[in-house]
Amino acid sequence: MSNIFESFLSTSEVQEAFGARNVLDAMLRFEAALARAQAGVGLIPQAAAQSIIGTCKVDLFDVTKIVRESARAGCIAIPLLNSLKETVSLFNKEAAAFVNFGSTNQDVIDTALALVTRNAIKLIEADVDKTVAALLTLASRHADDPLLARTLMQPASVTSFGLKCADWAAPLLRSRLRLQSSASNALCVQLGGAVGTLAQMQDKGAQVMTLMATDLQLKAPLFSWHTQRDEWVAMGCELGLLVGSLGKVAKDITLMAQFEVGELTESLGTGGGDAKEMLHRRHQVACMVALAAAQRAPQRVAALLAAMPQEHERALANRQVELAEWPGLLMSAHGAARAMAQALVGLQVDPQRMRANLDTFRAVLPPKEASQWFNPGLAQQAADLARTRLNVLVALRQPTETA
Amino acid sequence: MSNIFESFLSTSEVQEAFGARNVLDAMLRFEAALARAQAGVGLIPQAAAQSIIGTCKVDLFDVTKIVRESARAGCIAIPLLNSLKETVSLFNKEAAAFVNFGSTNQDVIDTALALVTRNAIKLIEADVDKTVAALLTLASRHADDPLLARTLMQPASVTSFGLKCADWAAPLLRSRLRLQSSASNALCVQLGGAVGTLAQMQDKGAQVMTLMATDLQLKAPLFSWHTQRDEWVAMGCELGLLVGSLGKVAKDITLMAQFEVGELTESLGTGGGDAKEMLHRRHQVACMVALAAAQRAPQRVAALLAAMPQEHERALANRQVELAEWPGLLMSAHGAARAMAQALVGLQVDPQRMRANLDTFRAVLPPKEASQWFNPGLAQQAADLARTRLNVLVALRQPTETA
Amino acid sequence: MSNIFESFLSTSEVQEAFGARNVLDAMLRFEAALARAQAGVGLIPQAAAQSIIGTCKVDLFDVTKIVRESARAGCIAIPLLNSLKETVSLFNKEAAAFVNFGSTNQDVIDTALALVTRNAIKLIEADVDKTVAALLTLASRHADDPLLARTLMQPASVTSFGLKCADWAAPLLRSRLRLQSSASNALCVQLGGAVGTLAQMQDKGAQVMTLMATDLQLKAPLFSWHTQRDEWVAMGCELGLLVGSLGKVAKDITLMAQFEVGELTESLGTGGGDAKEMLHRRHQVACMVALAAAQRAPQRVAALLAAMPQEHERALANRQVELAEWPGLLMSAHGAARAMAQALVGLQVDPQRMRANLDTFRAVLPPKEASQWFNPGLAQQAADLARTRLNVLVALRQPTETA
Amino acid sequence: MSNIFESFLSTSEVQEAFGARNVLDAMLRFEAALARAQAGVGLIPQAAAQSIIGTCKVDLFDVTKIVRESARAGCIAIPLLNSLKETVSLFNKEAAAFVNFGSTNQDVIDTALALVTRNAIKLIEADVDKTVAALLTLASRHADDPLLARTLMQPASVTSFGLKCADWAAPLLRSRLRLQSSASNALCVQLGGAVGTLAQMQDKGAQVMTLMATDLQLKAPLFSWHTQRDEWVAMGCELGLLVGSLGKVAKDITLMAQFEVGELTESLGTGGGDAKEMLHRRHQVACMVALAAAQRAPQRVAALLAAMPQEHERALANRQVELAEWPGLLMSAHGAARAMAQALVGLQVDPQRMRANLDTFRAVLPPKEASQWFNPGLAQQAADLARTRLNVLVALRQPTETA
Repeated sequence: MSNIFESFLSTSEVQEAFGARNVLDAMLRFEAALARAQAGVGLIPQAAAQSIIGTCKVDLFDVTKIVRESARAGCIAIPLLNSLKETVSLFNKEAAAFVNFGSTNQDVIDTALALVTRNAIKLIEADVDKTVAALLTLASRHADDPLLARTLMQPASVTSFGLKCADWAAPLLRSRLRLQSSASNALCVQLGGAVGTLAQMQDKGAQVMTLMATDLQLKAPLFSWHTQRDEWVAMGCELGLLVGSLGKVAKDITLMAQFEVGELTESLGTGGGDAKEMLHRRHQVACMVALAAAQRAPQRVAALLAAMPQEHERALANRQVELAEWPGLLMSAHGAARAMAQALVGLQVDPQRMRANLDTFRAVLPPKEASQWFNPGLAQQAADLARTRLNVLVALRQPTETA
Repeated sequence: MSNIFESFLSTSEVQEAFGARNVLDAMLRFEAALARAQAGVGLIPQAAAQSIIGTCKVDLFDVTKIVRESARAGCIAIPLLNSLKETVSLFNKEAAAFVNFGSTNQDVIDTALALVTRNAIKLIEADVDKTVAALLTLASRHADDPLLARTLMQPASVTSFGLKCADWAAPLLRSRLRLQSSASNALCVQLGGAVGTLAQMQDKGAQVMTLMATDLQLKAPLFSWHTQRDEWVAMGCELGLLVGSLGKVAKDITLMAQFEVGELTESLGTGGGDAKEMLHRRHQVACMVALAAAQRAPQRVAALLAAMPQEHERALANRQVELAEWPGLLMSAHGAARAMAQALVGLQVDPQRMRANLDTFRAVLPPKEASQWFNPGLAQQAADLARTRLNVLVALRQPTETA
Repeated sequence: MSNIFESFLSTSEVQEAFGARNVLDAMLRFEAALARAQAGVGLIPQAAAQSIIGTCKVDLFDVTKIVRESARAGCIAIPLLNSLKETVSLFNKEAAAFVNFGSTNQDVIDTALALVTRNAIKLIEADVDKTVAALLTLASRHADDPLLARTLMQPASVTSFGLKCADWAAPLLRSRLRLQSSASNALCVQLGGAVGTLAQMQDKGAQVMTLMATDLQLKAPLFSWHTQRDEWVAMGCELGLLVGSLGKVAKDITLMAQFEVGELTESLGTGGGDAKEMLHRRHQVACMVALAAAQRAPQRVAALLAAMPQEHERALANRQVELAEWPGLLMSAHGAARAMAQALVGLQVDPQRMRANLDTFRAVLPPKEASQWFNPGLAQQAADLARTRLNVLVALRQPTETA
Repeated sequence: MSNIFESFLSTSEVQEAFGARNVLDAMLRFEAALARAQAGVGLIPQAAAQSIIGTCKVDLFDVTKIVRESARAGCIAIPLLNSLKETVSLFNKEAAAFVNFGSTNQDVIDTALALVTRNAIKLIEADVDKTVAALLTLASRHADDPLLARTLMQPASVTSFGLKCADWAAPLLRSRLRLQSSASNALCVQLGGAVGTLAQMQDKGAQVMTLMATDLQLKAPLFSWHTQRDEWVAMGCELGLLVGSLGKVAKDITLMAQFEVGELTESLGTGGGDAKEMLHRRHQVACMVALAAAQRAPQRVAALLAAMPQEHERALANRQVELAEWPGLLMSAHGAARAMAQALVGLQVDPQRMRANLDTFRAVLPPKEASQWFNPGLAQQAADLARTRLNVLVALRQPTETA
């Protein structure tokens, strides 16, 4: 899947979720749901719907050929729909005319994208939950362990490692909640027909939409969103924010895991590193994945935002840009979430070294400064804060657990 | 303010909101509120607080000198606080030691930024409201006027201009509501002290925060957000989304205002254009401003997202990047919102030309296609949709009206 | 290859050039050249080199397995080198220790990337040459055809279509020449060893480098470029500039091909468009591809530039970001170049309509303005300029023809 | 100047270079040169030219009023030219008609921008030269000092600090040379008239251009570049590359200056830091400035590249975006160059600590690994390389010294 230099920056699950087979399968689910709904309201014959529904099985299609033909068509829906019509007409000639009736390429592509994105979001949410859980455990375990607080890359005072973990967790949990809310708005059926008016469905468009939404378990939107992409891109922004907060955790761990600092070690279980396989090398593959995502996702979000001024009733180029940039954002996000979940579960914490670094710094300071700003006792205040915040986080987390 | 090539892409109001004087004033309001709250809980003497509060008047300070000195300090708070201490000690030597007690540069800067941003958001909201109102009026007035629907930059079928206006309005209204919600989360007091633990305020930190929040009419956050920037950047993302949706309206108007299309004319009242001042030139300054914002805002958002992995308890560089990029985003957003509000209020609509373009296209088509896809009667379906959507939009708009 | 929504935005050739098989093949060519050179200067035994060289055949390796294992390693070189060592030791146990001797993962990856990029650049150059040739032909053919010159999206005066074509060609030709120069600097062997000092090769490093450069037909750089990426990213910038200039041509064609303007039609041969396959639709797939590239490439370039501050002797994350972003840039660039080459060869030009649009505009103007700014005779000045510029372009083009 | 949060990220010199007064002055220099040249070839009366030239003094104009009026005009040239015409006609009524004769707003703005950019480039070049000189001195002085080489943020082997400095210098010097070449192509007169054809100047356009180029000491381009921005944006890309390489130096210094590493200290002379003014804090303001630039410049470059598809003969919005983004890029670049020049001149190097870190690491390793990869003797190889590379750099540097 994807290019050889980015597959290890993501996960096989999310790469598969956006793989050609899964996307075409989702497109066929749209077509089946459309035919079912249209037959239900009497827009197309039941027999035609049955033929279409029966043919909407991805195993009946030549995925590679369809992808190849999309190059000439400039659109993935065209060769799939051609192939679907051909296959349907083998069994039921009349039915072919009812394939994608009153709908348009963008309807099927947007809805399919919502379906596969929903799966990717679930994967991401699961790993964010694990990351948050691991952080809350660390926050609780290390609430009282003093740690140099560092500002502008220099020692500034004393905090506790537990507080640091609680503060790492908070934005991840907020992102988790915002993403849930954002996805519930954005994961909609798209059904607008050629130009967003559902003209061919006469006055039955709204009914068809409702039936399809129930069938596909997506939201029925109040407006067709062919060229109004704000809710979709808002979900992309949430992913960008999530990745940014994951990157913050990874950045700190990377700095604390430097040999000269030595306060943390990324679990060896996450593997990887240098070909030399030197025993002494601490591997930081997970942090690398999260930091890479945190550099790449902002550019994807910028591309999505810049593509928003989509012309008239369907855009030339801006729409294709949005589609093309989308999967990479989800891939980065899941790569980062999975990596941090793994890294934090296996994180090796060295409270003695944290204390030693603090003491070493105190030793070079004038006594007054040492006692004012670098008294290990200052960790107590941080510990109290850590516990207060832990309670807040645990309370905030509940809705996601039952979700 | 700002550079000579971007002042016309924004408004004087929002440029002033982020002007040096207003930012320093907001910083002084933070210092006054801090002293008041700390005296209230007994952390600092009442007399000291009175001296500090009395000195926190921007007119007492040399704004230009403070900005100049920030260059050496690498921070705007350092010269202001130095100057504040000096001035306070002129009147009350003991009080100087209590200036910014237990707080840090970032506390004052972040809180000041929240204060000035709140003003900018209000400006933006007011102009988005005007834009939405103008669009709803147009949607109602032109619900039945047929218009060529265009996809991939070519005629595709028939819609109505009223429906187009309703569809332009929907994402703006959604942005308006999301921005309100996002701002209510992000516009917080920042109070964490040197490293986020409020250590110097002993156990009074939370009380001080609460008092200050009431005083400054900002939210008291559950966590200090020194290096957890997700809610702040989320507000930035909302601005990016808003600008994208404004850009969509501007893009369509620009295309429809081409001489060869001639369906719309941007009001001459918005002025501007070519030095030649040729009578024949239709001026599109407002659309230009919105389209420029739609190209620039995504890059600002990307910079904010990329700056999120802020090291430890205060970042080196990433924090300064976030600060430096912030005002430009608000300036673009208000520039775009104001421009579109003005353009839409004065928009000249030519329904005859819309109809003529449709008829001209019908004339070159085979009769069957002309009647299937370009029957002016198709506008009726669009008109019905426009009216339905108008009702939805009016209902959605209510919370913003009472806000 | 790649994701289903971007394959049609590129070409199969460039997607194949960066395919897993080709990249692994280039990595094996590096290993063979390294062994050959090291045996040549006596650093490793001839017999070991023969075994290594003989094993460096991509057909001997399980490409899918290596890609899969890269996920755990966080690096594509680790599983390949492990596999290479295993395979070598099947035949010659002693030789395995000399695989990648004194070199490092990054050496093999960077050099392999230079090899596959060279092929991609050649593909791009060929299509830019075709685009330029087509434009020069059009410029010559339509030098005298009057055309409305448009500024700020409104008629401004008169130019000639031939001049417009010459002006479209100029930046493409400049990009072609700059890209050639940039590639000749950037397409280097990477050979630095673990930390850029080639320490294990004793004093033979420079000799090995020279031999390898001759063998692989890449430049031998004066400095190892493990974390000094300026020349590589400079080549990326050139690709961004090229795509921007191709996008300018596509943007203008798209506007001129609007039904209401009707001056150009993108060749039907480039296929594609809407599933409806309406006869009346002019297909603009080629312009879509170029415009999509022009929106995506800037974000790729930004990611490359932002990744430049690579830590110490090999970066964590920034390096992986650069690698991951690279192929997409080349894919966009070739997609755009190929699309415009095809579109321009088949472009349908309607000089009558150009003239008619001019006359229609003249008719609505006051006579004085019509004669001052919209006299068709003004095209003569443009025609003279077109011919002068054509001569310049033909002269500039010569070095690329013999190259 | 500019916003209060970015002034310390730049320098007062470059902020002044792009200040309203300097830009308007450059625009007036264009108008004077145009009048002079046109009188020289007989296009306008000598008396008119004298009046225009005599009035083109920035002190005669109300800068603030012109900037304010640009908001309504959507262009800075319109109010300036109006004001110039008014002032000229006070003295010589007939001359007013010859102001900006045959030229257009974009001609004056682009040329003025080239003039002020030239000054900014000189400032940047001077500081890059100082940075390179300081690095070559450090490279020579510390060629033999062993230093832990670090890859993926962990110790990897041994290098020398001198080699590190030479490798920091190389891309800066290459950027310096590329920027010089790029600027010599891009710093051109813009003279195209309303739509790039210079129609009103009859056959005298080329002569006028040549005279103006000599007068203003800019290049006379072969093509008008109203909407062909590749050479201009290429110069922007070079600035982005330069900033990226400066950021690399800053990133490494920041990491080496961490308390726990302690190998370098940014000169206290560069000031700044925390309000606490704790003696123990090592100030890293210079690195902060360079790192901030390295995060911001890529977004500016992306905006410039994305704005390249400029419509027809003058773009709506894309052109204004390019203009608005431009000064910030130069400001970041000079801020970074100046900061690093200052930081490196005053850099405090601690070779004992470098050696101690190496020894500490050796002590935790198995003896075999310690001797193979972390033998301080390995620094000798690095030292030899450093000296070789120094010679190359000194030779490369010569053209810039005589320039």
